[in-house]
Amino acid sequence: MNAAQHHHDSIIIDGLNASWFLSDSVIERIHRGGTTAVNATIAAWHDPAATLDMIGRMYHQIDRHSEIAQLVRSVDDIHAAKTAGKTGFILRFQDTTPLADKLHLLRVYRALGVRIIQLTYNFENLVGFGCQAPEDRGLTEFGRQVVSEMNRLGILIDLSHCGARTTLEAIDHSEKPVAITHSNAAAQFPHPRNKSDEAIKACAARGGVIGAVSFPAMLTPNLPATLDDYVDTINYLVEVAGIDHVGIGPDLMEEMPAEVVAIVLKGLPVDAVNFMKSIPPVQGFASAADMPNITERLLARGYSAADTQKIMGGNWLRLYAEVWESPSH
Amino acid sequence: MNAAQHHHDSIIIDGLNASWFLSDSVIERIHRGGTTAVNATIAAWHDPAATLDMIGRMYHQIDRHSEIAQLVRSVDDIHAAKTAGKTGFILRFQDTTPLADKLHLLRVYRALGVRIIQLTYNFENLVGFGCQAPEDRGLTEFGRQVVSEMNRLGILIDLSHCGARTTLEAIDHSEKPVAITHSNAAAQFPHPRNKSDEAIKACAARGGVIGAVSFPAMLTPNLPATLDDYVDTINYLVEVAGIDHVGIGPDLMEEMPAEVVAIVLKGLPVDAVNFMKSIPPVQGFASAADMPNITERLLARGYSAADTQKIMGGNWLRLYAEVWESPSH
Repeated sequence: MNAAQHHHDSIIIDGLNASWFLSDSVIERIHRGGTTAVNATIAAWHDPAATLDMIGRMYHQIDRHSEIAQLVRSVDDIHAAKTAGKTGFILRFQDTTPLADKLHLLRVYRALGVRIIQLTYNFENLVGFGCQAPEDRGLTEFGRQVVSEMNRLGILIDLSHCGARTTLEAIDHSEKPVAITHSNAAAQFPHPRNKSDEAIKACAARGGVIGAVSFPAMLTPNLPATLDDYVDTINYLVEVAGIDHVGIGPDLMEEMPAEVVAIVLKGLPVDAVNFMKSIPPVQGFASAADMPNITERLLARGYSAADTQKIMGGNWLRLYAEVWESPSH
Repeated sequence: MNAAQHHHDSIIIDGLNASWFLSDSVIERIHRGGTTAVNATIAAWHDPAATLDMIGRMYHQIDRHSEIAQLVRSVDDIHAAKTAGKTGFILRFQDTTPLADKLHLLRVYRALGVRIIQLTYNFENLVGFGCQAPEDRGLTEFGRQVVSEMNRLGILIDLSHCGARTTLEAIDHSEKPVAITHSNAAAQFPHPRNKSDEAIKACAARGGVIGAVSFPAMLTPNLPATLDDYVDTINYLVEVAGIDHVGIGPDLMEEMPAEVVAIVLKGLPVDAVNFMKSIPPVQGFASAADMPNITERLLARGYSAADTQKIMGGNWLRLYAEVWESPSH
């Protein structure tokens, strides 16, 4: 098995990339890594006007790189990106703040190409509770409406940063499978952002997918982390969720300016800039350009070619198809 | 010639309807009037967040009436609406305030379906000057950028409410034909909102179209106005612009709540509510349901079947096709 060739021949989906703003060089590296599609963060705690601004900037940036980049609105677009040798960018929010209190803005964002929305970032919002909130009282009534409307419109629900109760209630309330795009297993490595086996199993049982995070602080206490640590995590998730329900969600944060890092870490008891600087990158996975190394490690650790394809993109693709291709739109 | 049958068989385009919010009954009447597509106002002096809200409400309203209504994103959609017996709604702004100072928001609005934008409402904005502004210093530098970007994206430029100089400069700067969706001829009936023969001719010479307004205050000093007054105005516009460059732009304002009327008339020396109440509707054209009466009057006054079709929709359709079907999108 030639790992590089296998990577090149596969549909590779980066289940979560947080590198806002996607600079020219970040886009170039993502493309160089052979990624077919990337779930790209374009907003978090941003109000509608700021969100619109960021979407406009993203369109502009994709246009500027149209030889290697395109917007993804459908699974067909991902196949088209693969055929054309481009990387497709899926627009996603880290939080539901861009909705304000208006359910009908979901249609507007869907029309703009937003296909994945995380219900909460780290703290409480109008929809539910994040994993760093002092308590989690579960999905709100507005949150249930948002889940139902996302089901209807064909927007994938992401629960990665949600609190334990909000996570379980959203899985239960959703009529469609959901995603945990970037969390590991708390049973394997305790961290507020990692999920209980109960949540992982519930997600998988409904057809959902969990994406393994390579962010070292959520992966291992022994830094620098290695790609074998990452495969260990994938192994555990496969054990709990099954081979059809695990993808990758590295959560790369490349070239993020200090003010964006400050937004990402808002409310947490860490010094944003120093915290990020203090964490060395995963060995062998310093940037999105190193994506082929994950394929190589999975194959080297004994995953079959077919199972490697599932983890590297196939499972995300199946989930996207099931959720996005809504009969109502 | 059976006028009703001719109307029914034609593509009828209402070149400008200001009836925000489009209530259930307004939509029903527009559809009952046999209108194939309507240029529907969804925002004026609204910031991006408010505009997003209004677009979301419009989507919701169209969905609620999906048996008779659909969104128009392309000329194909207008043909599809005709085939299905529905009315297509074209989204348009009365002003460029929804852009704030961000050129890239034009892409965002285009992605949302906005296909026609008026550069200014009655007064000055970042783009240029309205027809009620104390002076008109023409298109700004940002205005020239907006015109060029609208050309590139395939958004139709509307100059109806613009001042005389802004109107001429925009026609000159635009590489694509433009619209004056709802103005009459100042030479025939002086009113700040009506256009000089010079502007009408310049618009037509570049392939543009002017839509005749039936709003009585811009039509005739002798109220109540009649459909023959309206045809007189159309006759004059046809004389100046040519039969291929005149459409209808009635500017109906049905069921507009007092607060919306106040926005529409902001800055003008009139009492909004009493002003609107003081103007009786055109006889025989009390609402959008009476649209067939315009076809009937045009035929009765001697327009051929083919020329009537041009005025009632064909000219708008040609212009939309030329501008919207941009090679760049």
